[in-house]
Amino acid sequence: MADADVSVAPDPDRPPDRPSDRRPDRSPDRALDQPPDGHSARHPERNPAPQVKAPAPAAPTPPDSFAAVDLGSNSFHLLVARLDGGTLQVIDRYKEMVRLGEGLTEDKQLLPEVAERALACLERIGQRLRGVAPDNIRVVGTNTLRQLRAETGFVEQAERLLDHPIEVIAGREEARLIYLGVAHGLAIGDEKRLVVDIGGGSTELIVGQGFQATLRESLHMGCVSISRRYFPNDKITAKAMDKAELACALEIRPVRELFRQSGWSTATGSSGTIKAIASVLAAEGWSEDGITLEGLARLRDAMIECGKVSALAFKGLSDERRPVFAGGVAVLRAVFQHLGVQQMRASDQALREGLIYEMDGRVHHEDVRERTVATLCRRFETDPEHSGQVRATALELHAQLREPWELGHENHPKMLGWAAELHEIGLAVSHSQYQKHGAYLLRNADLSGFTRQEQDVLAALVLGHRRKFPVDVFAQLPRPARECGRRLAILLRLAVLMHRGRSAKANPRAQVSADGEHLSLRFPPNWLDDHPLTRLELEEEAARLAPAEIRLDFG
Amino acid sequence: MADADVSVAPDPDRPPDRPSDRRPDRSPDRALDQPPDGHSARHPERNPAPQVKAPAPAAPTPPDSFAAVDLGSNSFHLLVARLDGGTLQVIDRYKEMVRLGEGLTEDKQLLPEVAERALACLERIGQRLRGVAPDNIRVVGTNTLRQLRAETGFVEQAERLLDHPIEVIAGREEARLIYLGVAHGLAIGDEKRLVVDIGGGSTELIVGQGFQATLRESLHMGCVSISRRYFPNDKITAKAMDKAELACALEIRPVRELFRQSGWSTATGSSGTIKAIASVLAAEGWSEDGITLEGLARLRDAMIECGKVSALAFKGLSDERRPVFAGGVAVLRAVFQHLGVQQMRASDQALREGLIYEMDGRVHHEDVRERTVATLCRRFETDPEHSGQVRATALELHAQLREPWELGHENHPKMLGWAAELHEIGLAVSHSQYQKHGAYLLRNADLSGFTRQEQDVLAALVLGHRRKFPVDVFAQLPRPARECGRRLAILLRLAVLMHRGRSAKANPRAQVSADGEHLSLRFPPNWLDDHPLTRLELEEEAARLAPAEIRLDFG
Repeated sequence: MADADVSVAPDPDRPPDRPSDRRPDRSPDRALDQPPDGHSARHPERNPAPQVKAPAPAAPTPPDSFAAVDLGSNSFHLLVARLDGGTLQVIDRYKEMVRLGEGLTEDKQLLPEVAERALACLERIGQRLRGVAPDNIRVVGTNTLRQLRAETGFVEQAERLLDHPIEVIAGREEARLIYLGVAHGLAIGDEKRLVVDIGGGSTELIVGQGFQATLRESLHMGCVSISRRYFPNDKITAKAMDKAELACALEIRPVRELFRQSGWSTATGSSGTIKAIASVLAAEGWSEDGITLEGLARLRDAMIECGKVSALAFKGLSDERRPVFAGGVAVLRAVFQHLGVQQMRASDQALREGLIYEMDGRVHHEDVRERTVATLCRRFETDPEHSGQVRATALELHAQLREPWELGHENHPKMLGWAAELHEIGLAVSHSQYQKHGAYLLRNADLSGFTRQEQDVLAALVLGHRRKFPVDVFAQLPRPARECGRRLAILLRLAVLMHRGRSAKANPRAQVSADGEHLSLRFPPNWLDDHPLTRLELEEEAARLAPAEIRLDFG
Repeated sequence: MADADVSVAPDPDRPPDRPSDRRPDRSPDRALDQPPDGHSARHPERNPAPQVKAPAPAAPTPPDSFAAVDLGSNSFHLLVARLDGGTLQVIDRYKEMVRLGEGLTEDKQLLPEVAERALACLERIGQRLRGVAPDNIRVVGTNTLRQLRAETGFVEQAERLLDHPIEVIAGREEARLIYLGVAHGLAIGDEKRLVVDIGGGSTELIVGQGFQATLRESLHMGCVSISRRYFPNDKITAKAMDKAELACALEIRPVRELFRQSGWSTATGSSGTIKAIASVLAAEGWSEDGITLEGLARLRDAMIECGKVSALAFKGLSDERRPVFAGGVAVLRAVFQHLGVQQMRASDQALREGLIYEMDGRVHHEDVRERTVATLCRRFETDPEHSGQVRATALELHAQLREPWELGHENHPKMLGWAAELHEIGLAVSHSQYQKHGAYLLRNADLSGFTRQEQDVLAALVLGHRRKFPVDVFAQLPRPARECGRRLAILLRLAVLMHRGRSAKANPRAQVSADGEHLSLRFPPNWLDDHPLTRLELEEEAARLAPAEIRLDFG
């Protein structure tokens, strides 16, 4: 199977896609999910169909279908599928080996010709995304996009062609999603599993049980990067292979004991490299059941005997895979040797499938982000009583301003509630300027289920929850999150202010209304006269909100 | 007693101080304790005696005496004392109300005339420090020095005059030391105590039991800052007093419930403000036993009746205290009202005494920093087995290089050992670049017993323990810590490298030797041949140490 491009034809029973079948254009209240270029509405005229290659027409897809796009260092993949009783039904699948990682320069720019072929591919993927509801799409970027400098503008261009935001995810988040995809494809069992995914620029190692990943690591080695470094001149020698394997061993070493002692009993591999190796070993008759250590040794010998990357001609090896095959074999050999793997099966499911299970889970209220926030609160020992009160007040304010301030997307109250729960985590570092420490933790922590952009928004909310309003920080958020982020921050500030006394006594419910940037808070008659501290704090707050162009009046 | 300058005459039985009686000049191995200007040796000719005011001659002090200097926002204090069976015997005491806080400008510079009077005072204090062994001196700066910009060069000038480094300590560390001083002066009891210290720019609130502070807060209000803001034109009105008290209430509010519910039963106040208030209330007959709420009310009324700061003429109020008395009274009234204090006794002991008990404790191996590091390791869940192995190896390397690399000061192996224990705390944030997160935590955390400079060194060691060697970060450390910091970092790196496999198997003991910046590691014969990964890592390490101007060879 390996690297074949499996496309499933559109369902002939479904009517062609018509604009009226689509979900409404993304309104401003989806801003937290939107691309940073502000192309919030879908305007096909801004994304003309490519002139050269004939794209597949936008497939008509059932309204409950999801699309996952994986922009890897080696390949770009699209998967459109729906879940029927937990089983994945593929509607569309598309792949190109763009080898983005080859185009990454020393100073983290992208070679123009590689950028060009990547964008051409994204144009085609963008076409195929047309039929899917925007809320049901996730596009993730991995190793190469993690490294690429923002100034290159590549991500913005890509988002414009896809008409969808790209989430650049951290290596360990990638590992979690891969495990989720692989685990759903395996027979349910109680055993601990090792899952290995060899990408173009990174390799993910995961140990998990059931659907839960318990160990996740992302290592800096992949089939593209190792091939570039150790087999650059088309030559395959025993010495080069030794060096490549040693370099991989060095990467594995710091986590070797951790994985060896984790008690896994079965090993599964995902990704094109591993599927290709399994395919070659089976086709050449070098191993009988999946990938074995002996099979890998025979493959290595055969490659050295051949001596040239371009001359590799194994049964089951595609032309596309050939240039990065030697590096991939070196990575897998090192993994086998150093983690003590004897045998490995290849899985057809991985990151893309994981994304789809995750989207489906969120729809069914199993948002993994809830658990992440709860874990963080425990680790940094927040005061659940106080943050619960702040959260409740913040959400009351949100309910009153949902309409006038266009904060109706489901992510808005979620993010506000999480920020309220987390607003004091910085106290675990130091009382002094704890809002800054909290923001640091949220920007840098490994938060399962959150995208980097969402982490930035959470960090901005926590940073802005007291003292000076950080106008600049909100101005630097991706455009769609700017306006709603700023507004959510103001709601959080007011909620924190109302609970500054940290007393168990409930505050009176304040009535809040907004007319544009003019915000009015109304307390019961005489209440503020009896609470001069709150009045003083509101006066200070009004002064602090002025630079954020908010006029706050109260009484 | 309030603000009288209590000087104790030199002991006539002791011979005058001679150079040969002093401890040896500070050698490079004391670098971690030295001032940033590089004046490591004591050169009296660089610090000529002031020409104008006659300084007290350097007092001959017993060799086991300690000196504590407290550079507050209102006063500068010197205390020289020794401890006899836990009892403090004062040898010298000196104080000037410099009112440094008055000189702090909006942009955190210092008015020239205030800098001048402060430096003149430090010259006098420097003279009096001459008789004390450098290792037995601590000089700490508090609120105003916390705020002052480094570019002003004030701290460097001050260090030159004192011929001793100044430790700028965080508010909560200040609170801890105040409590230590106050608690030693109180009868031993099991009750929980509230301790309040009103400084020039900050007010410390502490609840503790025995010698242990359990709650510590430092609030942004002090007798100088409140006087400047609410009584600037010599006028005292009821309205200004209300506003001042309300501003203080606002500062207290976020911690009010915390302190109210902490279960303290007795209240003690330290600092000049509180001693002055106690003195006035007693002298005027407005309260019978310490400071009472009623006594404060009478004082307030009398001040408003008088109407002018400059005209305040209470019995027991010194001329020096008068300009900042109104602000101090407002702070204390707010504390009484909002923390529910009915009565407060004044303590003669505070920060300076705390410093002396602390120095004595360190001599007797009760280094509070040990406990701080252990707490941090628990909070951020480090792997004690692994960090213990790294620590042991790092200390073995240190023992071998103590002489040639001049790392003989007791602080050197301590800092190295702590850095080894803490080197992985950043993993609590994220695996990716965890050395940076660890450094952030160590720079910003509230670490009992550590000075800010020591935290910076620990942070640099953790940052530099793997990957690129952060040459710049070490170059920016205070000069005396640069060279030894860089060398300790290299020892930590090598120790981490030798345990990269995280296996329980002990590494062979490597022999290390140094000839200047040329470092040689020797393993048992053939060991490296059998461990090609370690060899590869050492090769990488040699390349990474080159920018730090270290030549590493191994075999």
